[in-house]
Amino acid sequence: MSPETLYEHPLNEHIRAYLRLESLFIQLDHSSPLKEPGQWQMFFKYLFDLIEILEQVHIRGELAKYLEKQRGKLENWLNVPDVDTEQLQQLLTHSRQLQHTLLRTPRPGLSLRENRFLSSIRQRFSLPGGITSFDIPALYHWLELPEEKRMRDVSEWRDSLRPLEEAVFFWLQLTRNSAPMQPCTISQGFYQQDIENANLLRIQVSQEFNVYPLVSGYKTRFAIRFMPFDDSQAIPENVTLLLAIC
Amino acid sequence: MSPETLYEHPLNEHIRAYLRLESLFIQLDHSSPLKEPGQWQMFFKYLFDLIEILEQVHIRGELAKYLEKQRGKLENWLNVPDVDTEQLQQLLTHSRQLQHTLLRTPRPGLSLRENRFLSSIRQRFSLPGGITSFDIPALYHWLELPEEKRMRDVSEWRDSLRPLEEAVFFWLQLTRNSAPMQPCTISQGFYQQDIENANLLRIQVSQEFNVYPLVSGYKTRFAIRFMPFDDSQAIPENVTLLLAIC
Repeated sequence: MSPETLYEHPLNEHIRAYLRLESLFIQLDHSSPLKEPGQWQMFFKYLFDLIEILEQVHIRGELAKYLEKQRGKLENWLNVPDVDTEQLQQLLTHSRQLQHTLLRTPRPGLSLRENRFLSSIRQRFSLPGGITSFDIPALYHWLELPEEKRMRDVSEWRDSLRPLEEAVFFWLQLTRNSAPMQPCTISQGFYQQDIENANLLRIQVSQEFNVYPLVSGYKTRFAIRFMPFDDSQAIPENVTLLLAIC
Repeated sequence: MSPETLYEHPLNEHIRAYLRLESLFIQLDHSSPLKEPGQWQMFFKYLFDLIEILEQVHIRGELAKYLEKQRGKLENWLNVPDVDTEQLQQLLTHSRQLQHTLLRTPRPGLSLRENRFLSSIRQRFSLPGGITSFDIPALYHWLELPEEKRMRDVSEWRDSLRPLEEAVFFWLQLTRNSAPMQPCTISQGFYQQDIENANLLRIQVSQEFNVYPLVSGYKTRFAIRFMPFDDSQAIPENVTLLLAIC
């Protein structure tokens, strides 16, 4: 059997930011030991990407609202018979705690943006190939500091983002679990559907079709167009896939 | 003893590009197995950085001239007594071969820039956090292709850059070896010197001073200013270091 590839598509700009942040948090954790070749370059690249997203998007207040809306949906389940109300109550409590912590802490990314060392290297680092000792001498000095001192800095930078990270992960996890993957057949490589109050599309498709989806979508409607991966190849008459509208 | 940190500084824009290219080639090799978490993100980041530098700088003709000038200097050694002329002749022959191959092959980076798959993902990839499946679905499809096919693509992309890579590595290696590291003491954190026909500064300094160098320089003169790594710290009266003017 061919492997399946999972594609996710956000249905508004907030979810778009949450998905990007999620992948950056994961990359930061992969690279934060700073031991393997290339890890420090990755770590700082993704830290600076995070700072940039957090500069562009005022994330805290919106995410709090999204957590609240999500709790509203969860609460509807409390009256359904045979539902595990204990687990539901735990989720609701956890969600409230995450929101409380998120709103209580300073604006995410602010301390990183104001950090003298980080801002001294950020601009040159973003140049193509800006990872040489003449571009960022302060970072080359930092890289030779004792491991303990470097790991203290890394923890401090990462910890300043934890409340945001935990809230993003929680919201995305519950959103992903909110709708089942359902089989769907798409003809001539194109599909569209009206929707209501959806946040995220999840599309799982077998590699055997050798296509990938281009998705456009917003609040009330989405469209999926499958593109052939090879120029010379026609779009298969029917593509079967799994689709979740979360 | 405290560890030492080596800083290099190019004395013109061509050498600046060679040093950046060198570091990108090294990063590409670290990441090209695409097996560890984060490696594919690194690989494509550095491949696209390379393409961008090669778009900005017309590198081939200039590098050929630099190889020629370097051979001129090597040839001066042929008449010096007790010099290993056989090794010198080998270096001269190798340099001529590298130059020949470099000029014979298509413009470096051109085939990568024109590659349909690479150009379809390049623009979104450069967005902050642009590594999600909705930014670059074609790449997510590619990542699930059989390893053999992916490694064939990686080899093809890398091989198109080999003649440039080999010439850059050769020129830099000989340039670095062209001048010895010499002890030097810098007072009040500042030093300047007149120079002639130099390409590259190499500065090795102990971490114990907790400073890093900011260098400005061009053809006939350079200046080094040492910056304290910690805000609160004064510049040491004397900084001892090793300096090579290559």
